Amino acid sequence: MTKHIRIITTHTTDVSHKMKNLEPFARHKELKFSQVKLDKGPASIECEFDEVLASPYIIGRAMEAEQDMHDPVHAIVIDCVGDPALHAAREAVRIPVLGAGETAMHVAATLGHRFSVVTIMDRVRPILENHMKMYGVYDHCASVRAVEIPVLEINKDHQRLYKLLAEEALKAVEQDKADVIVLGCTGFVGCDKHIKDYLLENGFDVPVVDPLPTTVMVAAALLEASLTHSLKTYPRPPVKLRKGYSIPDIV
Amino acid sequence: MTKHIRIITTHTTDVSHKMKNLEPFARHKELKFSQVKLDKGPASIECEFDEVLASPYIIGRAMEAEQDMHDPVHAIVIDCVGDPALHAAREAVRIPVLGAGETAMHVAATLGHRFSVVTIMDRVRPILENHMKMYGVYDHCASVRAVEIPVLEINKDHQRLYKLLAEEALKAVEQDKADVIVLGCTGFVGCDKHIKDYLLENGFDVPVVDPLPTTVMVAAALLEASLTHSLKTYPRPPVKLRKGYSIPDIV
Amino acid sequence: MTKHIRIITTHTTDVSHKMKNLEPFARHKELKFSQVKLDKGPASIECEFDEVLASPYIIGRAMEAEQDMHDPVHAIVIDCVGDPALHAAREAVRIPVLGAGETAMHVAATLGHRFSVVTIMDRVRPILENHMKMYGVYDHCASVRAVEIPVLEINKDHQRLYKLLAEEALKAVEQDKADVIVLGCTGFVGCDKHIKDYLLENGFDVPVVDPLPTTVMVAAALLEASLTHSLKTYPRPPVKLRKGYSIPDIV
Amino acid sequence: MTKHIRIITTHTTDVSHKMKNLEPFARHKELKFSQVKLDKGPASIECEFDEVLASPYIIGRAMEAEQDMHDPVHAIVIDCVGDPALHAAREAVRIPVLGAGETAMHVAATLGHRFSVVTIMDRVRPILENHMKMYGVYDHCASVRAVEIPVLEINKDHQRLYKLLAEEALKAVEQDKADVIVLGCTGFVGCDKHIKDYLLENGFDVPVVDPLPTTVMVAAALLEASLTHSLKTYPRPPVKLRKGYSIPDIV
Amino acid sequence: MTKHIRIITTHTTDVSHKMKNLEPFARHKELKFSQVKLDKGPASIECEFDEVLASPYIIGRAMEAEQDMHDPVHAIVIDCVGDPALHAAREAVRIPVLGAGETAMHVAATLGHRFSVVTIMDRVRPILENHMKMYGVYDHCASVRAVEIPVLEINKDHQRLYKLLAEEALKAVEQDKADVIVLGCTGFVGCDKHIKDYLLENGFDVPVVDPLPTTVMVAAALLEASLTHSLKTYPRPPVKLRKGYSIPDIV
Amino acid sequence: MTKHIRIITTHTTDVSHKMKNLEPFARHKELKFSQVKLDKGPASIECEFDEVLASPYIIGRAMEAEQDMHDPVHAIVIDCVGDPALHAAREAVRIPVLGAGETAMHVAATLGHRFSVVTIMDRVRPILENHMKMYGVYDHCASVRAVEIPVLEINKDHQRLYKLLAEEALKAVEQDKADVIVLGCTGFVGCDKHIKDYLLENGFDVPVVDPLPTTVMVAAALLEASLTHSLKTYPRPPVKLRKGYSIPDIV
Repeated sequence: MTKHIRIITTHTTDVSHKMKNLEPFARHKELKFSQVKLDKGPASIECEFDEVLASPYIIGRAMEAEQDMHDPVHAIVIDCVGDPALHAAREAVRIPVLGAGETAMHVAATLGHRFSVVTIMDRVRPILENHMKMYGVYDHCASVRAVEIPVLEINKDHQRLYKLLAEEALKAVEQDKADVIVLGCTGFVGCDKHIKDYLLENGFDVPVVDPLPTTVMVAAALLEASLTHSLKTYPRPPVKLRKGYSIPDIV
Repeated sequence: MTKHIRIITTHTTDVSHKMKNLEPFARHKELKFSQVKLDKGPASIECEFDEVLASPYIIGRAMEAEQDMHDPVHAIVIDCVGDPALHAAREAVRIPVLGAGETAMHVAATLGHRFSVVTIMDRVRPILENHMKMYGVYDHCASVRAVEIPVLEINKDHQRLYKLLAEEALKAVEQDKADVIVLGCTGFVGCDKHIKDYLLENGFDVPVVDPLPTTVMVAAALLEASLTHSLKTYPRPPVKLRKGYSIPDIV
Repeated sequence: MTKHIRIITTHTTDVSHKMKNLEPFARHKELKFSQVKLDKGPASIECEFDEVLASPYIIGRAMEAEQDMHDPVHAIVIDCVGDPALHAAREAVRIPVLGAGETAMHVAATLGHRFSVVTIMDRVRPILENHMKMYGVYDHCASVRAVEIPVLEINKDHQRLYKLLAEEALKAVEQDKADVIVLGCTGFVGCDKHIKDYLLENGFDVPVVDPLPTTVMVAAALLEASLTHSLKTYPRPPVKLRKGYSIPDIV
Repeated sequence: MTKHIRIITTHTTDVSHKMKNLEPFARHKELKFSQVKLDKGPASIECEFDEVLASPYIIGRAMEAEQDMHDPVHAIVIDCVGDPALHAAREAVRIPVLGAGETAMHVAATLGHRFSVVTIMDRVRPILENHMKMYGVYDHCASVRAVEIPVLEINKDHQRLYKLLAEEALKAVEQDKADVIVLGCTGFVGCDKHIKDYLLENGFDVPVVDPLPTTVMVAAALLEASLTHSLKTYPRPPVKLRKGYSIPDIV
Repeated sequence: MTKHIRIITTHTTDVSHKMKNLEPFARHKELKFSQVKLDKGPASIECEFDEVLASPYIIGRAMEAEQDMHDPVHAIVIDCVGDPALHAAREAVRIPVLGAGETAMHVAATLGHRFSVVTIMDRVRPILENHMKMYGVYDHCASVRAVEIPVLEINKDHQRLYKLLAEEALKAVEQDKADVIVLGCTGFVGCDKHIKDYLLENGFDVPVVDPLPTTVMVAAALLEASLTHSLKTYPRPPVKLRKGYSIPDIV
Repeated sequence: MTKHIRIITTHTTDVSHKMKNLEPFARHKELKFSQVKLDKGPASIECEFDEVLASPYIIGRAMEAEQDMHDPVHAIVIDCVGDPALHAAREAVRIPVLGAGETAMHVAATLGHRFSVVTIMDRVRPILENHMKMYGVYDHCASVRAVEIPVLEINKDHQRLYKLLAEEALKAVEQDKADVIVLGCTGFVGCDKHIKDYLLENGFDVPVVDPLPTTVMVAAALLEASLTHSLKTYPRPPVKLRKGYSIPDIV
């Protein structure tokens, strides 16, 4: 049976080009990918303020996905390394919900001794390091480095982006002793090859984890292993009034 | 000059009776307390789902507070031990924003060797333990225990509430070796005395931290010491489109 | 292209029946699974002594797998929760090598707040807890429990095995506050459903991670994402004399 | 009622000028501050040797404070970032005893992601880092830096002191990625503004925690919240002979 | 050359009987042991208050030992599991100074997976756990248990003492999963055999670390390996006035 | 009675010259040292691959030692900082088995605030850091530095070796703030004095731990204190078939 994985993009900007990067993973149509973005919320995620404004709509998208009777969705991937609304979405639905950040960092922790995250701006470093402390991978982190390019400018100049990412990755390997690189933004999807090549040219054969496709593939693995999140950690939200939101079966 | 501290209650239910508990702290009108609740959002906070739905409105209340020219607010206290929207609110405003959970747990860590949190329901234990890992106080935590009373039923039977809280607190001290008790819900405001008395009757003289008044008093202390949060950790959200929200100077 | 995953069973006992449990995962022959056991070494793995005696032969199997020109192998899974020879095998070959223990524990850490491992004998608890400290998941561990059945007797009485595993799992959930159960031996393959049902009957909907199929599926995910281990963490062993071993290209 | 907070200076040198820095905090005489220094002990605290020689006299001052019937003292602040005799003093008296180091570091941990301590000499770094491990704030520490000025020379050249402190603080922010600065000696009282200004000139708006006034204000907050230390962690010293000391009710 | 190890008993009570326990370790007079107790200070160590009052005199004894030209001392052992004045004594002298607690806990950490300390009274548990956090052995600790016998009553009823120690040790092994027992008071010297026998009778072959002889033997090992403490961590106390103390070369 | 300590060199290369370095420690023949190397296995240990290939033979040497009726061995030291087969050897024999790495790092943790390991090649850094996480000394580690000299070339040019070791040690002290140096290879035996002198010339009086003699002396201390490893952590391997190995009483 075809497994349907829904990618929830966590903002309002069209990034449907990302789906091209997932095409090679469809396995002769055994896997089906669909993407939704938000109608409302921030145009990109660059701070906790953005995460808060996006999160109710992310949950809404997650509930829609689970309730779609015509085109059932089997798993959800939250398309942001900051994992906004991850735990809340797991409370809201019973199909697996994976965060691109959590998944990529756990995978990275198994690929080498220490990883560095190369992300958009230094301002998200505290957010990611806080997550690492919760997830248990903080001792595996060599550094968080940033290219200082806002999300909405990522696609303006690909060559410059590749160059800056590759240079920070090389510094992470040489100066911070990183063994693995994690791309710190799902907007960097597909940049992994450029970084990997640059590192190889400089004598370092280290894996570069591209969070979105990696997470999608791990989501497929969980589906095949019939695993979903613990209802003990993420019990259904209790029924109560929640003004301003229309939530069937929960309000 | 009178310092004005705004308590932001993180849901839509009227809990203005809480303000009575703060009256003794007004210091001959040197301190002024005001409280707002939310117009929209959940009727109470009992899971991360609730936190997500409340958080945009909490930030809205924080920004209103900072922008009020007629009755300037000098500090904000988020009235929930789960600290919803805490970091995002600090990004949104420059006056100090304190979380009742973060503050109470740091205070507890200085009052004795290990603290236990006695909270509403066991389902919030993972949320609080995740926060402890971020805040750095996880090794100071003896246990998280729950009375299994939903927030909206807290005020239905005070005697039963006191009894259950006191019994869990005693188990925390005797079985989990807790040295300090932290009330795990700001809805328990004022219950500290009952627990403390019960523990004393049973031979244990341990402090019971009531998060709301404790946090309000620490907020006053930070104001007097001219301290607010680091703009380096919590820089202003970048200007961008955030559909569905009208945010002056940020959108 | 069909991906070929080689399962290296880490002892000399025939456990080819395990392969039946992997059949459902073949994805219309997109994935191919093969299994080898050891010619020499212990009949089962129950202590570090066994791991040491098995490890040279595990590495030998890994090198054979990588060098097979007729039936290329794309990834290796070490079929033991104790992860014997895991790092050494990664040094020896460049295709991905996954440990059933490391993978299952990282997956478990993403499925809920805390996991318990239910394993064969309490004597392996220190081994697993040491690994957790290295892997970074120690703070996610609620407990390690054991059924006290030696590996070679696992298949003697399935009903008794299911019963003991289920009872320990229930104790883990109720007494140790586990949110996720990890089977602590790949010999328990297929037991997950029995435990899950028993926990559901007792009111707990928690995932049960079966390490072997879970790891095989994650291996497939890594292959699809073109990820393998860091050559920086696991560089090729230097060329030197290694008496008693015939190792092409390394000795 | 006026609350009386006693500052116990932990050495024999006159530093009564410090009290000027506390005047602005008196709140129209709601708070009263008094200071005592030691009759015997070291002239300053710069190592654990000094702490040991000062500690019996610090405890003596704490017991005197609690026993003063004419001018009752409600809380004690130990006037040293090294927190000498902190736990022992809490055993000796039942009024709250706060350490300037413990309090400042916990406050700093709530103001931003990571703090740096800028202190007198690098030789106290191990002492402070050991304390951080006990207190739980070690993961929040970016660095400990020193100006290499002995305590007794702090007041010899204020301009040089400000300059050196500001330069180390800037290095902490730029090189060590500190988000908050903690002054690492209570002798630096009042220097916070100079450092803060220098950091602002260099583009960094980060809080600078001045331990003495911050701790005094937190002490007032604890008094108002009716909190003191846990008798379970700090039980009264048992009655026994203690030669060379005359301790009413304890010897 | 005979190595002379000085045991500094940290209180004023005569415990010269302890030296009998060290006789078997003299190695045909290659090692010489001497003991001093304090002239002033508490009659026993049972809290941090006692530690503070004893510590100046402990340092005094350490300095006397180093300065004795007639009978040179080569190493010092502080005869208390609470390690009073340990770091300060290392600052004061250049010969090795070992703490019975620090040494015993590090040795225990190498003898098995987790150790339990069985000590005099539960009130010292926070002190010991704080030390474990500093020393790095906290994750190796299974529990701290107490027999609730004050130090000065240890020698009143040996049979009762052995029985209580053995019972707590057995609980530590069975309930807390301890693999090693550490005696939590140097006053328990020689009790290790009784506990070990009792555990063996109950089916557990676990080592029991007797801190005083173990530390003395490790001190001898350090002397033979020409190791002493780092002058970088423990630099000489600076010259300054220290009223009430007459300290040659330091005051 | 003379205590006989067996040094098990973990490879096939003759390093009998090392025994000269132990001669000064014989204590008038109270201690007897013997050394064996491996008949089979790698010519040196430089990666986990080498450790795996050496480990079965190390265990064999350990069992031979314990079973030698003619010249009884009382303790075993594994002559490699990587501690290969350490836990497995403890399962195999009941006399104490010490690892040069584990012992040296625990000793270093008691000699100063933080230690740096100066080792052969950077490729062993992850191995050592993983061990530190297990042993509990990771927070005491300032850095792992390497001279990039393969083990088999250590003895080719002593002057160059001393120089490189000393330079890395100085960098560790100055740049990484190390307080203690640990030699990261037992092949460096005797180099401690050269490093120590060089550091002294540069103004740093820090201890340099030479793992082999230090561990031998600690082994003697454990023997004298009648301590061996916990049978609860390291129970005897169960009797079972282990093809390719002839192991009396265990197979």
